[in-house]
Amino acid sequence: MTLKVLDVTLRDGGYRNGFSFSREYAREHLRRMTNAGIEWIEIGYRNGSFKAIPNIGTTGLSPDSYLQAMRAETADRRLCVMFHPKNITLADLDRMRELGVDMVRACWDGERADLSAQFAQHAKALGFTVCVNLTRISSQPPKRLLGAAERARESGADVVYLADSNGSLTPERVESLVRVVREVVQCDVGFHAHDNLGLAMTNSIAAVTGGATFIDSSLRGMGKGAGNLKLELWLGFLRRVLGIERYDYRPVLDQVHVLESADAEARPIQPLVDLVMGLFDLTVEDKDRIQANRDPPRVARIRGARVRQRIAGGAARRARAHRRIVGRAAPGAPPKD
Amino acid sequence: MTLKVLDVTLRDGGYRNGFSFSREYAREHLRRMTNAGIEWIEIGYRNGSFKAIPNIGTTGLSPDSYLQAMRAETADRRLCVMFHPKNITLADLDRMRELGVDMVRACWDGERADLSAQFAQHAKALGFTVCVNLTRISSQPPKRLLGAAERARESGADVVYLADSNGSLTPERVESLVRVVREVVQCDVGFHAHDNLGLAMTNSIAAVTGGATFIDSSLRGMGKGAGNLKLELWLGFLRRVLGIERYDYRPVLDQVHVLESADAEARPIQPLVDLVMGLFDLTVEDKDRIQANRDPPRVARIRGARVRQRIAGGAARRARAHRRIVGRAAPGAPPKD
Repeated sequence: MTLKVLDVTLRDGGYRNGFSFSREYAREHLRRMTNAGIEWIEIGYRNGSFKAIPNIGTTGLSPDSYLQAMRAETADRRLCVMFHPKNITLADLDRMRELGVDMVRACWDGERADLSAQFAQHAKALGFTVCVNLTRISSQPPKRLLGAAERARESGADVVYLADSNGSLTPERVESLVRVVREVVQCDVGFHAHDNLGLAMTNSIAAVTGGATFIDSSLRGMGKGAGNLKLELWLGFLRRVLGIERYDYRPVLDQVHVLESADAEARPIQPLVDLVMGLFDLTVEDKDRIQANRDPPRVARIRGARVRQRIAGGAARRARAHRRIVGRAAPGAPPKD
Repeated sequence: MTLKVLDVTLRDGGYRNGFSFSREYAREHLRRMTNAGIEWIEIGYRNGSFKAIPNIGTTGLSPDSYLQAMRAETADRRLCVMFHPKNITLADLDRMRELGVDMVRACWDGERADLSAQFAQHAKALGFTVCVNLTRISSQPPKRLLGAAERARESGADVVYLADSNGSLTPERVESLVRVVREVVQCDVGFHAHDNLGLAMTNSIAAVTGGATFIDSSLRGMGKGAGNLKLELWLGFLRRVLGIERYDYRPVLDQVHVLESADAEARPIQPLVDLVMGLFDLTVEDKDRIQANRDPPRVARIRGARVRQRIAGGAARRARAHRRIVGRAAPGAPPKD
């Protein structure tokens, strides 16, 4: 089994811009990624993310007209759509198949395991390449993870993905998880990194060492929180280290440039809060809770600061950002440490 | 020998802002890095970079008054200054010692090997911790590299550093280079990464595997071109993977925030040109040549675009940036691929 690159820019990158990629951008992206030889291009979620996102854009819903337009862009077998079982019906799978989607990626829902299995089975029967993604693998007991992997495989998965949703895994653990899952499922295993600890690259390499054959990445690493493995860098690794020369670099560089020009949200970031989340294996719910947990007088003070900031400019804004990140007042005179 | 963290923000980060850190920032930086427990803090170049930089700022020159002020900030043995042999005299070493600098880092100059050796000897005699940095190791024949390492060690180096100046090395090569150099020099070996291929972290881990005990990093990876290993992420790796808990994270997060607020140049970037340089093991001179090599009519057109851009705003600027990066016209209708 050869290594496959799966581009998640239009889907995971959507968390950075409200899934508001224009259809024109999406088509151009698909065309260039196809020309580059990227094996699979994930073009969005069907019917939303796990949690509802207000005013979610096109690639967060992947309506029929969008799938049609994307299908018209390439005859190649590369089109991939992700879904959460709770968001779709079997009829959605039928429809996506009619519209020519090649692969579906089901996020395995442990609390709706029967439903997840049913979707995988139906997708398989329809002729999709079926990928099942096991998420938040860092916070699951190995036995439960292996059970889900086994059931996903039995339900028809061609590829079983491990997603480091919390961005907290270390290379040795990634390698061993991939190795043991691969032994159980005896099919392609994929790895989806998050870069909270700056280990997206190191962990993806470790996944390949462990036997992974599918690796997720996105242009500039555009993705939730600290982002994903950067596709343009992963191709560099494949070429320089593994001697894989089948990808055409030029369309990728072109598209990185177009993306960054069109969408400031695409630029690499590494918020400190996501770094800390990775350090302590925290989830996005933890992040929400932490950010919501402010006592009322303090919120009032911050609101006051916001008003002052409109008048006074940058200093108050910086102070507020500092407070948001480190949870206490910004450094000033006298210094505290 | 325990692992040491060497912070190069004020020195290598200077390539991003013309070495224009304010003295106030530098003092605060030193204070917080000291409080965090970072073993060595490199506070600048003495008397300039290898190539002259117009209007170079304080941390590019490290004049006496600056060294004095920095020394006053901490009693700890952590202060480190880098120099190029062609830029200083033996009297500079004497002076730096008088002013209380603890470590000097000499960039080994292959074309001035006798001079480089002489400086290392003199520094050693003065009581400095002496570090010799071998640069551009990717483009040196191993025999020459090992010869330089041996001579550096004989001249009194306590630490011999390998710097991946072109950002083109791969993890296996880093590990083997460190291993073989360590066998030859039988002292501390350090590694200085550049992140052109997104491998700064992976390569630094590989260096440690090969036996390196000094690793360079900077806040946010602020450094030349694609930047360095990110210090805040490296501490995460040390804690999560190697179980090293002696560093205090809070002052580091504070200082990352102060740096990013004070200096937009500190934000992580990964210019495509530096990625391509890494892929092909190109040097900064290659980069200069590539960027200078434009035929006159084209330059004229670009200048025209610049003027138009001032009037028309973003579109011309993006077109120019595109041209600069991919070397041809920006994509538009009709698409070329």
